[in-house]
Amino acid sequence: MSSIAIVGASGYGGTELLRLLARHPSLEIAAIAGASTAGLSVGDVAPNIPAGAGGERVLEEVDVARLADADVVVLGTPDEVSLELGPQLVAAGTRVVDLSGAFRLDAATFTAWYGREHVAPAYAADGATPAVYGLTEHARDLLPAADLVANPGCYPTATLLPLIPLMPLIEPGGIVVSAVSGTSGAGRSSRADLQASVVHGDVVAYGAPSHRHTAEIEAHLGPEGAQAPVVFTPHLVPMSRGIHATGSAVLRSGVTQVDIDEALAAAYALEPFVHVLPAGAFPRTKAVHGSNSCQLSATADARTGRVLVTSVIDNLVKGAAGQALQNVNVMLGLEETLGLDVIGVHP
Amino acid sequence: MSSIAIVGASGYGGTELLRLLARHPSLEIAAIAGASTAGLSVGDVAPNIPAGAGGERVLEEVDVARLADADVVVLGTPDEVSLELGPQLVAAGTRVVDLSGAFRLDAATFTAWYGREHVAPAYAADGATPAVYGLTEHARDLLPAADLVANPGCYPTATLLPLIPLMPLIEPGGIVVSAVSGTSGAGRSSRADLQASVVHGDVVAYGAPSHRHTAEIEAHLGPEGAQAPVVFTPHLVPMSRGIHATGSAVLRSGVTQVDIDEALAAAYALEPFVHVLPAGAFPRTKAVHGSNSCQLSATADARTGRVLVTSVIDNLVKGAAGQALQNVNVMLGLEETLGLDVIGVHP
Amino acid sequence: MSSIAIVGASGYGGTELLRLLARHPSLEIAAIAGASTAGLSVGDVAPNIPAGAGGERVLEEVDVARLADADVVVLGTPDEVSLELGPQLVAAGTRVVDLSGAFRLDAATFTAWYGREHVAPAYAADGATPAVYGLTEHARDLLPAADLVANPGCYPTATLLPLIPLMPLIEPGGIVVSAVSGTSGAGRSSRADLQASVVHGDVVAYGAPSHRHTAEIEAHLGPEGAQAPVVFTPHLVPMSRGIHATGSAVLRSGVTQVDIDEALAAAYALEPFVHVLPAGAFPRTKAVHGSNSCQLSATADARTGRVLVTSVIDNLVKGAAGQALQNVNVMLGLEETLGLDVIGVHP
Amino acid sequence: MSSIAIVGASGYGGTELLRLLARHPSLEIAAIAGASTAGLSVGDVAPNIPAGAGGERVLEEVDVARLADADVVVLGTPDEVSLELGPQLVAAGTRVVDLSGAFRLDAATFTAWYGREHVAPAYAADGATPAVYGLTEHARDLLPAADLVANPGCYPTATLLPLIPLMPLIEPGGIVVSAVSGTSGAGRSSRADLQASVVHGDVVAYGAPSHRHTAEIEAHLGPEGAQAPVVFTPHLVPMSRGIHATGSAVLRSGVTQVDIDEALAAAYALEPFVHVLPAGAFPRTKAVHGSNSCQLSATADARTGRVLVTSVIDNLVKGAAGQALQNVNVMLGLEETLGLDVIGVHP
Repeated sequence: MSSIAIVGASGYGGTELLRLLARHPSLEIAAIAGASTAGLSVGDVAPNIPAGAGGERVLEEVDVARLADADVVVLGTPDEVSLELGPQLVAAGTRVVDLSGAFRLDAATFTAWYGREHVAPAYAADGATPAVYGLTEHARDLLPAADLVANPGCYPTATLLPLIPLMPLIEPGGIVVSAVSGTSGAGRSSRADLQASVVHGDVVAYGAPSHRHTAEIEAHLGPEGAQAPVVFTPHLVPMSRGIHATGSAVLRSGVTQVDIDEALAAAYALEPFVHVLPAGAFPRTKAVHGSNSCQLSATADARTGRVLVTSVIDNLVKGAAGQALQNVNVMLGLEETLGLDVIGVHP
Repeated sequence: MSSIAIVGASGYGGTELLRLLARHPSLEIAAIAGASTAGLSVGDVAPNIPAGAGGERVLEEVDVARLADADVVVLGTPDEVSLELGPQLVAAGTRVVDLSGAFRLDAATFTAWYGREHVAPAYAADGATPAVYGLTEHARDLLPAADLVANPGCYPTATLLPLIPLMPLIEPGGIVVSAVSGTSGAGRSSRADLQASVVHGDVVAYGAPSHRHTAEIEAHLGPEGAQAPVVFTPHLVPMSRGIHATGSAVLRSGVTQVDIDEALAAAYALEPFVHVLPAGAFPRTKAVHGSNSCQLSATADARTGRVLVTSVIDNLVKGAAGQALQNVNVMLGLEETLGLDVIGVHP
Repeated sequence: MSSIAIVGASGYGGTELLRLLARHPSLEIAAIAGASTAGLSVGDVAPNIPAGAGGERVLEEVDVARLADADVVVLGTPDEVSLELGPQLVAAGTRVVDLSGAFRLDAATFTAWYGREHVAPAYAADGATPAVYGLTEHARDLLPAADLVANPGCYPTATLLPLIPLMPLIEPGGIVVSAVSGTSGAGRSSRADLQASVVHGDVVAYGAPSHRHTAEIEAHLGPEGAQAPVVFTPHLVPMSRGIHATGSAVLRSGVTQVDIDEALAAAYALEPFVHVLPAGAFPRTKAVHGSNSCQLSATADARTGRVLVTSVIDNLVKGAAGQALQNVNVMLGLEETLGLDVIGVHP
Repeated sequence: MSSIAIVGASGYGGTELLRLLARHPSLEIAAIAGASTAGLSVGDVAPNIPAGAGGERVLEEVDVARLADADVVVLGTPDEVSLELGPQLVAAGTRVVDLSGAFRLDAATFTAWYGREHVAPAYAADGATPAVYGLTEHARDLLPAADLVANPGCYPTATLLPLIPLMPLIEPGGIVVSAVSGTSGAGRSSRADLQASVVHGDVVAYGAPSHRHTAEIEAHLGPEGAQAPVVFTPHLVPMSRGIHATGSAVLRSGVTQVDIDEALAAAYALEPFVHVLPAGAFPRTKAVHGSNSCQLSATADARTGRVLVTSVIDNLVKGAAGQALQNVNVMLGLEETLGLDVIGVHP
């Protein structure tokens, strides 16, 4: 039995991880902590976790020494907190999976898009002991040795999974991604623009063209991706969970649907959590509600010379807590699927 | 390893059971069948179950002899089909859990509320070999020997769980229940009044005052319940899953909140799937989304001399497939919680 | 051309009134004011009112003398502000319609349910110059002479319209009302329990059994209503607008559906904004979305000896700004329907 | 007083037009007809239009001679019906606004995208007496003399309004549009994929890359638009009304935000129904709920050399019945805004 601790356990990422851990046979919860919520119980913040099912567990103060007793610590903390806490925990002898944006970019890119210095450049993606960017299906070999894993953002996860295998088939430049998210991606905080009365029956773009996930997508598309900027526009849609990403890219001359199908099959045919639908079929967000799966498809369009990719994830599972647990499983040498559902709650 | 078969496996109750069985360690699926959907694959009807995760399984024709090879058969069929098929399967040597209304009432009451003869009165609740009404928490002793279990309706499950323990504290007469349901309770069929454009942003009552679940609630409230009719009004609300029941009843003279709390604790303190919230706290449907839990509370109101009960379930889990699996577990001598979540998918 | 001013114009009641006034041919807006939002433009708070369509109008500080220049002032202010401001404005020579709960009850009942002294008892419903309770269809004769009109609450409007005409047919005691509301009834404030992530797919009761609208319903049911308490349970449902009220009451001996139909027809056959559906038909909230209409029905149930009433309104229109404008029209001698829609925005 | 008739009056376009006409001071309804719904009343299909407010009006059989007595006839009929009926009505002496796709393309393009011959090529956009493509703001001069107006599709309306004025600033090729729609765009028919249980909490793409509105957008972008194909991907989102279009296009060298702002101001500064938000601000669908407005913005992005355009309309108003009425007003020489709201029903 290995042990796990969570900081920021009262946020949506944290309570979602607690939901998943309730069914994990090989991980025990060593500690849960929260800077502003210490003293509250899990049941106070998560109505789905009643007393007797974990709801009675109490959030502690953040204590690095105590947290470092766990085999791994998951950070559900803001960027600036993770920047400090991540290296401290590694120094104290444990390993870290961080849900924030703190360790997903090289230091210079981080500074350009986040508007602050990167205080732990050694752990940024270009450092001497870089954080591993934990898009599990494409980072599996690096995870067992990683001390600090940067868990990917929700939009980048949904965007990168279909695009990475297709990059050799795509012209540099011309990638345009439009994505929508449920509101839980914005976290638990009370914001006027996230009130139910505002969101119900409403769709709105936000953050574009300078949303930070743009840089994250560009950084991790691979060598081909580095050659040109990506156009990325996120939107808020009236649902609680789910990300849907729609991407368009120019196909290299001569590329056909067969090439696309082969590239995706080579990448994902054996993956438990990535499901490739046939060309012309489109995944739907609710199919992966509560599950760690990504469903995706890619359809060539001869008329425009482009490929249309669509993909869906649950932003709190494959887009946050689920992929974190998937990474933890691999880091600790456990079976990768433990505690994680392939099948979503539908309808 | 025991075996289970499902008839009507393409309905919402059927696909939900398939979702739950994917995580059940001790039940293998012997066969799935559908009268009008034979030949389709599970993935054709359930986008959450992709190929490789059970989506490739094909629905068969309904064949009693083949189905009877399973240790238990769950029927997700219409009332009239269950009336025929249930006794046939029992006669062929297997055991049955039926999700329909076919076996929840005595034959006379069935005829009065369903408008047709009960063609298998021996299996109605007053017959020589009656069906067991499978509200698991109140039927546990009868299940191991039962050949035919009538799985309770979604509204009755949500209504009976809080009321049954309180009946000795309540005056006969005066029970008024108003309940709301998500649309999945109406099944997968295409109906004009269940189109998304109609349901979005809309609340409407239906079926009252003669909804069939009224009779089912009255029939299973226990001896005290039999003395007076219940007023029951169901409504459709704009969500996919979830039942919320609000009941009001006249307290017997002298009954206090302490008596209420004690009655509920005596009934449910040790139950894994029933969670009693403190008086004045109110459960919310999304807390049990995808889980087999019922959350409930009961609050005395001295001003009106009444008790207010509120309860929530997921209509497709504790209100259908989940309770069916809970019953199957008990019938087969398995651990009651296998394959079933206590924690819902929230938010 | 008469003139109107609005205080609290940045709240949902205020912006809704501005929406309606944009089409009113005989009322000009003299001033709009807001205590905490002075200096903002309407477009800053109401994305539906763009610059050029009223969005450019700027909220002013609250200035009683300036406001009193208008023929009528609508207050969309909290109870405690209305308690002060209402009498001041009347004293300054204008007339007032107040959307808050400040003037809907007699002083003693107000104190009991609101937990504070009524600082303007002369304007409570039992005072020497009482406020008129502006349920327009039942207050029309009093409005032309009224200086201060207490605009009814949203739940009471939906509950009282079907019940008042039926009170002579109903036994005292035994009225049980369960109602649901969209989130806009809670106003524009950012609250953790009103975040879209929490509300989506969720139903929850709140405030019972001591919600203040209970007292308001009891106070205005008429002489028959005063004889026994009403059981009232409100719930939040996942939509932005709309109230649905479901009531059950014991019929006096011998009362039939014919009596019910006659009572409702006598009350509402000529009303432009109240539409009585046949017994057994049920109104739906979205049918009145954005309109000032109430749709309702009442169905006798011989089996239980009770009548089931259901009714729907848009909480921001007939439940707030619309009824306020209806009252203003009558107070000023204008045609009652000016600026108000009968037909809702459906689907 | 002019007169109007509606064919297909029981569809969502038809009942929405009836909603708008209820407030139109200068148009009387001569007749309403429906092929399969003749004999039903409006109230039977539209719960928002109660008896006394137009709900009592009965749908007639389709009778060209009788319909031709009206000054104008609006067709809410399927493509194949409009193809026949439109020319017949013009021949019989009246004028027509058609909501279908029948007359929006030249005959060859129609055949390529709709898969059938155009049986009335004289009325296709390249015919001797072409239909006018009724994007009102860009067709105003042609409408007074038009006999047959092709009302634009909902997606094309939302897409063309922001793009047409920008076309001189944009490189040919590289226009990528991703749009989402509420479910009412699919009409009133019962479809399994439009059931509330399926749509709730769900986002899914459909129809791409060969959705017919792609050709319509390309055809009406103007001379610059004709040079290269447009990539268009529509999606269904969980709401009843509303279209949100997100477009990305490559800016010509040297084009700045100032050029963009000037182009949009030149096109729309005086338009009552088109509202341009500042660069970096994003319109939201609910702001135009029930109104005939389009809100849009365009933001230059120097990093990618592209412009991001976003726009919103209500698909049943500016995207169908509202724009039809706007066209009718211009055709008949009435004030263009009669019967139409600028302000939406928000929140």
